[in-house]
Amino acid sequence: MTLQRLGEIGLIQRTKKMLGSDPRVLRGIGDDAAVLPFTKKEHLLFTIDAVREGTHFTLKKAAPYSQKATPFQIGWKALGVNLSDIAAMGGIPLYAVVSLGARKEDPVSFYDQITLGMKSLAKLFDVVIVGGDTDSSGKLEITIAMIGTVEKERCILRSTARVGDVILVTGTLGGSRRGRHLSFMPRVKEARSLTKNFRITSMIDLSDGLAGDLAQICRESNVGAIVEEKAIPISKGATLHSALNDGEDFELLFTLSPRDAGILLQKQKMLGLRVSKIGKIVEKSKGIRLQTAKGTIPLKGGFRHF
Amino acid sequence: MTLQRLGEIGLIQRTKKMLGSDPRVLRGIGDDAAVLPFTKKEHLLFTIDAVREGTHFTLKKAAPYSQKATPFQIGWKALGVNLSDIAAMGGIPLYAVVSLGARKEDPVSFYDQITLGMKSLAKLFDVVIVGGDTDSSGKLEITIAMIGTVEKERCILRSTARVGDVILVTGTLGGSRRGRHLSFMPRVKEARSLTKNFRITSMIDLSDGLAGDLAQICRESNVGAIVEEKAIPISKGATLHSALNDGEDFELLFTLSPRDAGILLQKQKMLGLRVSKIGKIVEKSKGIRLQTAKGTIPLKGGFRHF
Repeated sequence: MTLQRLGEIGLIQRTKKMLGSDPRVLRGIGDDAAVLPFTKKEHLLFTIDAVREGTHFTLKKAAPYSQKATPFQIGWKALGVNLSDIAAMGGIPLYAVVSLGARKEDPVSFYDQITLGMKSLAKLFDVVIVGGDTDSSGKLEITIAMIGTVEKERCILRSTARVGDVILVTGTLGGSRRGRHLSFMPRVKEARSLTKNFRITSMIDLSDGLAGDLAQICRESNVGAIVEEKAIPISKGATLHSALNDGEDFELLFTLSPRDAGILLQKQKMLGLRVSKIGKIVEKSKGIRLQTAKGTIPLKGGFRHF
Repeated sequence: MTLQRLGEIGLIQRTKKMLGSDPRVLRGIGDDAAVLPFTKKEHLLFTIDAVREGTHFTLKKAAPYSQKATPFQIGWKALGVNLSDIAAMGGIPLYAVVSLGARKEDPVSFYDQITLGMKSLAKLFDVVIVGGDTDSSGKLEITIAMIGTVEKERCILRSTARVGDVILVTGTLGGSRRGRHLSFMPRVKEARSLTKNFRITSMIDLSDGLAGDLAQICRESNVGAIVEEKAIPISKGATLHSALNDGEDFELLFTLSPRDAGILLQKQKMLGLRVSKIGKIVEKSKGIRLQTAKGTIPLKGGFRHF
């Protein structure tokens, strides 16, 4: 069997099983970041994420529905995807290390711009780039690992959604491929505000499309979901299909009780948030479905690397 | 100017300057791992390192002086290079996250073997793989980030060698390309024994050849060095040239006072160590030189990615 046939999720599940668990680890493979013991009041968060030429950005003339990336944007995105992972745990990002696969024939100014892109975003979130590693590579590739902290009671997993919870998202979804995926703002502040003011029961960042990422929450939490098509906040000019499947919106998808959701929807402006209620968590046996004008259909899709 | 012309070390220095320093960071870019505040008695160590097909291993028929890597060896090496970085700081490795650039046409069993290679080495050093990230990539590529801890008084930097110190190495050097680079044992236990029993003044792991890595200690410590050609412990069947330039021996290069060195050389067997005294630290103005039978010559070389 090839990797493509097993699929990305299959490979992760298989690797997780092979590696086994360890009592020191509070939450290992299968969430946006690992949760590790730290101080009396806080957990340590640890995550890694890569951006690759041809997969996460293109350096060639713009293809349809995609945008040629500037080096500044590539640096921004490489750090941003990691910040988004820490945000999805409710955490405070602290330190990053960078592994660069560089094309040695490129001008130095190109890498200066990548560094500036990373630096600008790091500064916004008070994150320090503390080390790295450089190799020669045929294709440009940046892998960043990040550590952060989170107060124990504000650490939010994917695996703790409960039947009856309401499903919400921040911002708008879809069409990110036309450019926003290169300049998005990681929702660290939004996540901190949410966990400060509400009891969020589960959370994930939208990197693989609403359909793909909601499926992750459902699998890890052992629940089902119903999403209302008409409630999905679609970005201007984007399609429902792109909102469900394209990924890289880097908004937050989260669940909380109907009561808390009601208060959040009322207070969102005051809290500087923009959220939409898009559905509810149901029993696993009911599956993951999309409520359309013509009835419910299975909600499948999302971006997979293989 | 291209990256190739600036060079790997030049790029790191340039990036370090652009990013600036931060008072929270005890030691940032420019050592084997970053040193960060942790508990009252310990620092946190944070590092990242990649292994790439074509650069760090080959999957093709063996080229001269190189060996076709098995997937088990690739997994072993990917974790090993990070363990070696933590060892070089005198630290205890704890947790790792893995970013995998996978070839989707490969059989799943190939990736099972990579996982087993990582798992075997992780088990030996009581390290837990706590998370990761998977993408499709044209070439196989594994980037691992690792965190560890080190008692404050046992944390060893590259930048603290002193004029008059003696230079030592563990094990033997050279010829690693013929196979050992795929199955080396990271010197974590050796480093722990050294820092427990002696006041090590500086340390680095030998990833880029003795000439290259000694130059890093000298630049960071603002000193020079004289190495005695005849004292270099060359691996069986290897050449002096490969010991100085090839890299990937993953032994430890370190300095300490002549008095401590004397005791170490006497007690090494009792401590389960094998070390060789190869030279001494001198003033920066004297440069970095190799003492040969015919006099001294400048010691230049070492592996650079560009």
